[in-house]
Amino acid sequence: MTLTSPGPTVGVVGGGQLGRMLGEAAAPLGLELLVADPTPDCPAAPVVRDQLVGGFEDEETFRDLAERSDYLTFEIELADPDVLERVAEETGTPVHPAPETLRTIQDKLVQKRRLADAGVPVPEFRAVDSAADLREACEDLGYPAMLKARTGGYDGRGNVPVEGPDAVEDAVDDIAGPAMVEEMVDFERELAVMGCRGDGERDAFPVTETIHEAEILRESVAPARASDDVRERARDVAHDVLDAMDGRGVFGIELFETTDGEILLNEIAPRPHNSGHWTIEGCHTSQFEQHLRAVAGLPLGTTDQRFPTVSTNILGDVAERQPAALSGEEGILETPRAHLHWYGKREVYDLRKMGHVTLTGDDPDALLADARDLRDGLTFE
Amino acid sequence: MTLTSPGPTVGVVGGGQLGRMLGEAAAPLGLELLVADPTPDCPAAPVVRDQLVGGFEDEETFRDLAERSDYLTFEIELADPDVLERVAEETGTPVHPAPETLRTIQDKLVQKRRLADAGVPVPEFRAVDSAADLREACEDLGYPAMLKARTGGYDGRGNVPVEGPDAVEDAVDDIAGPAMVEEMVDFERELAVMGCRGDGERDAFPVTETIHEAEILRESVAPARASDDVRERARDVAHDVLDAMDGRGVFGIELFETTDGEILLNEIAPRPHNSGHWTIEGCHTSQFEQHLRAVAGLPLGTTDQRFPTVSTNILGDVAERQPAALSGEEGILETPRAHLHWYGKREVYDLRKMGHVTLTGDDPDALLADARDLRDGLTFE
Repeated sequence: MTLTSPGPTVGVVGGGQLGRMLGEAAAPLGLELLVADPTPDCPAAPVVRDQLVGGFEDEETFRDLAERSDYLTFEIELADPDVLERVAEETGTPVHPAPETLRTIQDKLVQKRRLADAGVPVPEFRAVDSAADLREACEDLGYPAMLKARTGGYDGRGNVPVEGPDAVEDAVDDIAGPAMVEEMVDFERELAVMGCRGDGERDAFPVTETIHEAEILRESVAPARASDDVRERARDVAHDVLDAMDGRGVFGIELFETTDGEILLNEIAPRPHNSGHWTIEGCHTSQFEQHLRAVAGLPLGTTDQRFPTVSTNILGDVAERQPAALSGEEGILETPRAHLHWYGKREVYDLRKMGHVTLTGDDPDALLADARDLRDGLTFE
Repeated sequence: MTLTSPGPTVGVVGGGQLGRMLGEAAAPLGLELLVADPTPDCPAAPVVRDQLVGGFEDEETFRDLAERSDYLTFEIELADPDVLERVAEETGTPVHPAPETLRTIQDKLVQKRRLADAGVPVPEFRAVDSAADLREACEDLGYPAMLKARTGGYDGRGNVPVEGPDAVEDAVDDIAGPAMVEEMVDFERELAVMGCRGDGERDAFPVTETIHEAEILRESVAPARASDDVRERARDVAHDVLDAMDGRGVFGIELFETTDGEILLNEIAPRPHNSGHWTIEGCHTSQFEQHLRAVAGLPLGTTDQRFPTVSTNILGDVAERQPAALSGEEGILETPRAHLHWYGKREVYDLRKMGHVTLTGDDPDALLADARDLRDGLTFE
């Protein structure tokens, strides 16, 4: 291999916080980053070579991006896999992970079928195209069950719990499109593994415990406060998931540890993931560096952990969309081993991901309590 | 304090590798960076908001930079302090560290006098304006002695050893300008401390051992392989140096540990310094984050060390100036806990600083040997 200046350019579809953190990780490796995003001056813009302004299905933008890049990747599932595939073919710029993988993952039903076929343990599920389908499925799976839109869901949007037979019609109306239903999993805790496929190698970061509220990630604790055996099995499942995917890159793999001690796959994301932000300080290689290494065909870095680490999201807590102004951040800046990550989003709205805070130390319980205290000291004005 | 988007902008005079690493550190804190540098597409350009192209004495460029920035700083001593001072006054944009501090440091004689007056231990020195001055000084200080240009020296350029009375005339001719001469210090090892002045606080990173060859830094070892007592006294000297300076920011403080066990100040740089690059991985706060915190008036981060750490420079090893192309970097990428930092310089020439490699671990001796092996595996093609 040869390092040059300028080095290879990685074109990223999407320039939100994930693009911004990819930008922070690129320069040491000698990589240059371009992002394409419809929002002018997106979060990644100040730390990358250039932003192309265009939508996630805009073929012209994708083509410009591909022509200026040596590798293409994406940091948002809304990227159109058909357009990516066409542009890659026309320009010869490879896309990682493979557009086919993105297509599979975008449709939750196709995703689950593919993984179940590959032997990955998943909750029981059924396709749902009508209220009759849902009623029949729930007779098998039991109530409550979770109805999910097959496409477009995000941070719990597109998920509707079905409490009983009377709720079936409304749930199907709510989703208003192709759906799937899953048994409601009785879980001890939720886990996540950031896996990575490189050029002929694969690896996984230490298992993370993820704490959600209203289906939005609040905190990540690494290593997960689960038994060694559970953590080992979670990693095994992650490896099986990676083997079922195509192309290179980081995958966020969300899992359930059931009350029976089983590991079940919940969902995967073909990109760096919120539950892996802690790796920036907590591991020797961050998930962002790892994704770039994979996409650019460089050797993967070690996934070893530096310290027990907790991160907590900074979410919007305002009633109305308004310019972002956060007070209380000096509490984070004054705390040794607390790390602020501000995403630079111009506006805040309720529950919008505006940044995160990472704390490293020794004891996960104490770190979690401290991280919550720091976060609770923040207010949007 | 309040975090906004966009956050405060820091304007940096100079956009070399130090500007690039400042750029990598800015976004998490919510800061935006602008750099001014005469070389179009300088190393910092791909990771900052914008580069202004202009020289280090160009008042128009400095004014543009100041008008677009909330704080001004510099990453190169060639920045003109008079211009900085005028522009700061005209635009109201504060400069850190103070231009007066830069002016003091730029003149090695003034620097040494100021520090000696403040009680900092320094090698014996004399002003030299003629061969007669040098001859007289060396009668006091003994031969060999080190003649140094008062201004413009860098990486050993501007330093001439004076071996005996016969070498006096040539040495003065070589420097061809105002100079100073210092006793040649018989040192056990060279040390460096990255100190920082914040808003009403000051702190210093752990003492680093620096290994030079032909007066160019080759490796840094942290903590320095010196006694606890020596390290403690080196930190004390660093604190005294910080107290003698004005304005906020990181200072690179280079020291000698003499064979008699004394600590003597060698030189200071009013900016992040090559001997502190190891802090990116080796400390919880890097010198680059610390400099930005200080300049922007944020609380300083902890200077605690994460692990024993060694870094080694990647220097040009070519006879002629040529496009940069480095082979052998896969050795670094494949080594767990080795971190590549490529500066993105377009061209390489002999001994040019092209990048560095950092290794973290347990045993400084082993890390140093491993880092040298990795570096020796690199070749410019």
